Amino acid sequence: FCLASLNSAVLPNALVLVADDLGFELNCYGNNVINTPNIDDLANKGVIYNNAYTTVSSCSPSRSTILTGLPQHQNGMYGLHNGYHHFNSFDGVKSLPLLLHANGVRTGIIGKKHVAPEAVYPFDFAETEENNSILQVGRNITKIKELTRQFFLDQPKNESFFLYIGFHDPHRCGHTHPQYGEFCEKFGNRDSGMGDIPDWKPDIYDPNYVIVPPFVQDTPASRKDISAQYTTISRLDQGVGLVINELKKAGFLDSTLILFTSDNGIPFPNGRTNLYGSGTAEPFFLSNPIQEHKFGEVNQEYVSLLDITPTVLDWFRISYPEFKLFGREVQLTGKSLLRENTKSNVVFGSQSLHEITMYYPMRSVLQNNLRLIENLNYLMPFSIDQDFYLSLSFQDILNRTQTGTDLPWIKTLKQYYYRPRLELFNLTADPQETNNLAYAPEYTNTVSTLRGLLMQWQNVTWDPWRCSPGGVLQDSGAYKFNPTCMSLLNGL
Amino acid sequence: FCLASLNSAVLPNALVLVADDLGFELNCYGNNVINTPNIDDLANKGVIYNNAYTTVSSCSPSRSTILTGLPQHQNGMYGLHNGYHHFNSFDGVKSLPLLLHANGVRTGIIGKKHVAPEAVYPFDFAETEENNSILQVGRNITKIKELTRQFFLDQPKNESFFLYIGFHDPHRCGHTHPQYGEFCEKFGNRDSGMGDIPDWKPDIYDPNYVIVPPFVQDTPASRKDISAQYTTISRLDQGVGLVINELKKAGFLDSTLILFTSDNGIPFPNGRTNLYGSGTAEPFFLSNPIQEHKFGEVNQEYVSLLDITPTVLDWFRISYPEFKLFGREVQLTGKSLLRENTKSNVVFGSQSLHEITMYYPMRSVLQNNLRLIENLNYLMPFSIDQDFYLSLSFQDILNRTQTGTDLPWIKTLKQYYYRPRLELFNLTADPQETNNLAYAPEYTNTVSTLRGLLMQWQNVTWDPWRCSPGGVLQDSGAYKFNPTCMSLLNGL
Ligand SMILES: [Ca+2]
Ligand SMILES: [Ca+2]
Ligand SMILES: [Mg+2]
Ligand SMILES: [Mg+2]
Repeated sequence: FCLASLNSAVLPNALVLVADDLGFELNCYGNNVINTPNIDDLANKGVIYNNAYTTVSSCSPSRSTILTGLPQHQNGMYGLHNGYHHFNSFDGVKSLPLLLHANGVRTGIIGKKHVAPEAVYPFDFAETEENNSILQVGRNITKIKELTRQFFLDQPKNESFFLYIGFHDPHRCGHTHPQYGEFCEKFGNRDSGMGDIPDWKPDIYDPNYVIVPPFVQDTPASRKDISAQYTTISRLDQGVGLVINELKKAGFLDSTLILFTSDNGIPFPNGRTNLYGSGTAEPFFLSNPIQEHKFGEVNQEYVSLLDITPTVLDWFRISYPEFKLFGREVQLTGKSLLRENTKSNVVFGSQSLHEITMYYPMRSVLQNNLRLIENLNYLMPFSIDQDFYLSLSFQDILNRTQTGTDLPWIKTLKQYYYRPRLELFNLTADPQETNNLAYAPEYTNTVSTLRGLLMQWQNVTWDPWRCSPGGVLQDSGAYKFNPTCMSLLNGL
Repeated sequence: FCLASLNSAVLPNALVLVADDLGFELNCYGNNVINTPNIDDLANKGVIYNNAYTTVSSCSPSRSTILTGLPQHQNGMYGLHNGYHHFNSFDGVKSLPLLLHANGVRTGIIGKKHVAPEAVYPFDFAETEENNSILQVGRNITKIKELTRQFFLDQPKNESFFLYIGFHDPHRCGHTHPQYGEFCEKFGNRDSGMGDIPDWKPDIYDPNYVIVPPFVQDTPASRKDISAQYTTISRLDQGVGLVINELKKAGFLDSTLILFTSDNGIPFPNGRTNLYGSGTAEPFFLSNPIQEHKFGEVNQEYVSLLDITPTVLDWFRISYPEFKLFGREVQLTGKSLLRENTKSNVVFGSQSLHEITMYYPMRSVLQNNLRLIENLNYLMPFSIDQDFYLSLSFQDILNRTQTGTDLPWIKTLKQYYYRPRLELFNLTADPQETNNLAYAPEYTNTVSTLRGLLMQWQNVTWDPWRCSPGGVLQDSGAYKFNPTCMSLLNGL
């Protein structure tokens, strides 16, 4: 369990960069159209993970898992926190910032927070949507640079820090701020009324030359959508460069563990809000300053965003405390990525709601390139969020479906809405997950094994949904120490 | 709009008594088996309402509507607050206790609170499950008597008070405290290990002689269940007597508006968690000390638990403030029952979840003895809560269904689970709501009119579900001032 260390005279620090709805539109992940030199530089200063996944494809729940190491069903952030969606983590959750602060690490957050309550997610330094415009702290990279500089200026010499930066790029924008374009790609570009982000040199992409992901229909509408997305990714990229430069100038580059990822898949058809790979695979780099020999390494192991909390705690040599939620022991199911011998061949998924009106709980397990998804509310259509609904790409699917126009997509809208209870995909043969093997007789044992693995994880993480939809979980009174699924006889 | 007043030298007070899962098992509502002399006395000191309804048949949501005057979808308490269900009202909600306190009325709560956050539901005097055992403050009527006495002892002479007492009887008990029986009917009955509630003289009922409600199967199991329920109703009844006696002894009887009701229907088949009459009709008495001429009056008007907040505010001559939630004007849709000219011929229903895993949103409207229910997640089976699942009555239905034994119920388990999207009942001809007229051609216009009424209310109360399940609500960005339902083309 050997863990390499910084020189004992140097205090360790950590910087976690989280993009919003970013996918693999990055040069370092093989996209040769987009221009992302700064993110590429960062990637090359560490290990590039090719099999990293979020457990949940939705902003607040995903961020809650990053910051607690617990799946949404265990930490309570069952869906989005904003507005009337209003989900919150349980008061008793011991989050990463809480544990770090208690252990003397100074904590900071800049940009998108999107989790609550404050008592669970406190930061010593906080410039977020709660006290700023989200566009300013999340997309104005000059402002982000200045806040980062401020955080480092305030840093006491005898303390470690943990800084979490939540970029709001490349999240969609049409839903809330349509005046700035589909992805806020005009915000701060110096056009009339768009303001000026001094440090940003906007990149413009020709829709004809963007790379359409295989799970998105290839049409003029989706290409236009993607070209706008690329422009905001360029802003994200330049923001990352500015932040790393501040880190360097402040003298912390060689003492700081840097982690870069995104919260969920791209907001395109089959992407965000789905537990398919297109909704859950995330870019993920880990730059460990004391492992220069690994810089540029490409790692194929399964990594979960649940691994971030144990990794950061491990970096600071802080152990996870014993505590209970609702009378039950809480334990992390993620692993520290700083250890050599903790490889995992399985990652899990757990999503319950996105918006409060979008109840579509799913659970998933990925092992040996086989992904099993269980859709718990499967008799109802899959739900569509307000933001994605208005997008060029989804409107294009609606229009083509309604008018009977050719739709060059991997599935029909009807297939997208109505899903079987179980979906099993062999990612080696079927990377786009269009061939459901769950009901093929030769996969009966595979399904059963994967469901067993999944249920084991649901039990350990106290999933309230683990008996749904065919049963009721009994876990109090006479069943307190013997939680049991009891059949509803509802035919499911 | 004439509103009779107390003598101007007398300060007005209000006492709101809320039973937990109580139905019409009361002598004053025609049940001649049960013995409820104290509740009957109270009923006869005011107006007895025969058509009072909760908007939502679930504890926390219902209590949130009592204490805010806003339906659950508007105040944010979408489901149960306890444990991992964890729903809360929005921080910006101006609740009844908040408004009363701000206007100089001293507020108190004794017993079951079940709503949160504290900042929305603060009470000057609070003895609830948050700082006590719920069994002690909710079922130990001696303790409730003593707390009530304490509240009155502390009452400053120059202030008005609002006291809310949340009895936990006759809620089920088997789920959390099975040692005390199905309804905690043994708790405090002086049997070995059951403790002693000094003021309680338990009434025991022979299962052969209980009255089985028409919507419950008539079997030995349900009769045994009901006989236990009767025993706890006797404890509730004696508790009400003790509380009223304390009010009298403290000299407040002639200055206090007393309101008695329950939060939701009885926890029996077709009852609690349903928007049928069997789940939503509530006992309701209003005792207005300055309207002695109305004592004993039986009123047939439609009353909603949403009327409680405007009634209490009116009693104290406090007007509801102008404020916004999420940028939108909030207005009460209930009415003061102290006014003569505010009769309403319509009441609404709005339920979203009970437990977090029980997503079964329904909306309803009742007008002129016609009830329309819309089930939004109707392709999935209706959900069953942990508490009810373990009950003798539901286990009996499961057993009889599984073994094919005769089930003398108004419906089959399958019918109970699988409901059509729309249900329309003519309560005059069909009080048990077994004959769905929603799809009968001669009711097309009726359905359309009622849906229109319902949608109007959903719009005024900003229901996030008002476009579900066939559409998406757009209400921000370009649609902020023009909220619009947009079709999903999902076939619903
Ligand atoms: Ca996101
Ligand atoms: Ca109740
Ligand atoms: Mg998002
Ligand atoms: Mg209840």
